[in-house]
Amino acid sequence: MTDYIKQTEQALYDYLPDLNCREKELIESMKYSLEAGGKRVRPNLVFSFNELCNGKTDAAVPFACAVEMIHTYSLIHDDLPCMDNDDMRRGKPSNHKVYGEDTALLAGDALQSLAFEIMTSDKAISQSSAAACCKAVNTLAAYCGARGMVGGQVIDIINENKSAPLEVLREMDYKKTACLIKAACELGCISANADDKLIKSASEYGECIGIAFQIQDDILDVTSTDEELGKPVGSDNENAKSTYVSLLGIEKCRELVAELTDKAKTALNAFDGDTTALCDFADYLASRKK
Amino acid sequence: MTDYIKQTEQALYDYLPDLNCREKELIESMKYSLEAGGKRVRPNLVFSFNELCNGKTDAAVPFACAVEMIHTYSLIHDDLPCMDNDDMRRGKPSNHKVYGEDTALLAGDALQSLAFEIMTSDKAISQSSAAACCKAVNTLAAYCGARGMVGGQVIDIINENKSAPLEVLREMDYKKTACLIKAACELGCISANADDKLIKSASEYGECIGIAFQIQDDILDVTSTDEELGKPVGSDNENAKSTYVSLLGIEKCRELVAELTDKAKTALNAFDGDTTALCDFADYLASRKK
Repeated sequence: MTDYIKQTEQALYDYLPDLNCREKELIESMKYSLEAGGKRVRPNLVFSFNELCNGKTDAAVPFACAVEMIHTYSLIHDDLPCMDNDDMRRGKPSNHKVYGEDTALLAGDALQSLAFEIMTSDKAISQSSAAACCKAVNTLAAYCGARGMVGGQVIDIINENKSAPLEVLREMDYKKTACLIKAACELGCISANADDKLIKSASEYGECIGIAFQIQDDILDVTSTDEELGKPVGSDNENAKSTYVSLLGIEKCRELVAELTDKAKTALNAFDGDTTALCDFADYLASRKK
Repeated sequence: MTDYIKQTEQALYDYLPDLNCREKELIESMKYSLEAGGKRVRPNLVFSFNELCNGKTDAAVPFACAVEMIHTYSLIHDDLPCMDNDDMRRGKPSNHKVYGEDTALLAGDALQSLAFEIMTSDKAISQSSAAACCKAVNTLAAYCGARGMVGGQVIDIINENKSAPLEVLREMDYKKTACLIKAACELGCISANADDKLIKSASEYGECIGIAFQIQDDILDVTSTDEELGKPVGSDNENAKSTYVSLLGIEKCRELVAELTDKAKTALNAFDGDTTALCDFADYLASRKK
């Protein structure tokens, strides 16, 4: 998947507006957070499903970058003082610590707009089709909006420092984390003009690995060392916040991760192509140590 | 234009997700600011250009509501403490004073997503075409993003409490205010599948009335009474901020508003239909007292 990461990162910078303008600081702030990327999980999923559906790689590029821009905007806004108030993100000062809260807020806003702009450019349309670009915009917008990612963040806020029941935790994680991963999987299929049955299978895979990812996060929060995790372990417990581990215990959580990973892999049976990379990716997420 | 206002407001609420969900507070917060709408200038422009280009009114509805959602999200974020820190908006407490900064931030984010979602629904596509919906998304996203509205806000922040030269003020107002008005005019034409020549003329009209609108704002800030304006007059002057009036004087500003209004009306000559309503609207904006 290293090639996909390189391709994503080059395309992300190419999509950014030129720095030679009065609002240079805004563009720098957008670039700063795009550069501070992690594993590029979501773009990788777009490219992988595009390949699995025999799509043209070029058609996946704008959708892959769009999902990453949405993910990046959500991290910038998440770190703001009125939200999680995090000074650091992936070992670097958060966007607002470098550019100020006002510019950070606006950089997030502009990244969201840019995501939808690049998905509907003449070039994007010529590489898939206007119908595919519309479907991709509609899918991504729905999954990242009020009934998706942002809705999940609000459920998180409402249940802060509260012991929430499992069904609330499940809905929160589904919306906060799994929705954007689902979107990435679906967009990969859409970029290859795949049919609805395949899109649905990709969506199922995305949902399963998305929820498994979140449960694994909760497990690592209690089993990992600070050094392995790159952030203080046990931070969930300090906030009296419900986690999968606090509600179900570690053993049950490990079983759940394994079950969901199997379910994700089974969903891939709908595809004719080689699903090895996506099976390995599901296993990798389930066994990760940070 | 009263019918258009009613149609816009009904459609705005219909597009909102159901309140019967865990993230109810988010939906209420989005609704609160959509309801606190002003003159619905932008949706009116979408509908008016749709009519002028002999489009189907139904095809204009999602685009009109999308522009209003983008405008509303920008007002919510503008009022936040890290931006203008305004407690009141149109005579009501600002969104974050009612729902908290975190929910207000997220309501703005979700409104932006919803704008692009409704422009690409199956219904929107069936009323115009996938090509038109893509073009509309691309246009709106570009005008509201880093090189448009958000870029203008950053130029504003950079020049806060500074005496900026006229060219900076012009670019700032063009981006901050005129771009979204241009977008509304263009989207009206796009919803009617009008050709590029007509879209360009609509864009010219939008740009002229957008800039005239801003200059008129600066004039009213020094000539109006508090009561007429609904906010303290002279507030621009207190901040040592450049305005058209401080740079050019009132008489020159009045000339500019008249010139731009004429130019806007001349741009309408490209259309075959009845342009009376749009000419009257340009005159109304130029002569408004608040």
